[in-house]
Amino acid sequence: MPAFHAHVEVTHLPGIADPAGATVERALPALGYKNVAQVHIGKTIRLVVDAPDAESAREQVQEMCERLLANPVIEAYQVVIS
Amino acid sequence: MPAFHAHVEVTHLPGIADPAGATVERALPALGYKNVAQVHIGKTIRLVVDAPDAESAREQVQEMCERLLANPVIEAYQVVIS
Repeated sequence: MPAFHAHVEVTHLPGIADPAGATVERALPALGYKNVAQVHIGKTIRLVVDAPDAESAREQVQEMCERLLANPVIEAYQVVIS
Repeated sequence: MPAFHAHVEVTHLPGIADPAGATVERALPALGYKNVAQVHIGKTIRLVVDAPDAESAREQVQEMCERLLANPVIEAYQVVIS
């Protein structure tokens, strides 16, 4: 079976607090960067999955996101297969 | 000044332990995904920066990575400006 590279980006859903992002946003002006806004910090997961085709690889990775990689109650995820 | 969207991906340098990735890689087969390998977990940072042009935005975000967003001793980072 061919191997597909999957790249998953997990971010907070809109309205969910992002304390790490807020902390960075407060820290940057103290370092001299007063021109920065809307800092959001998320998680990125890269993996290699064996699947018959790209569509099946995407479905499996989306299922992994729902079950393990992300928390769908508070997080959104985006899967890119290459 | 125009606002540029920056997307930073922070990953472990090759050879640096990635315990979160290793844990996910061990957990996935228990959930039935025996076709997954090379799991790497990193950090993604999205922010908006005001700068005169895209090149200057990139330089500033790279500087932020060196100083705050990443630890260059153990992490690599990739900046995409849009």
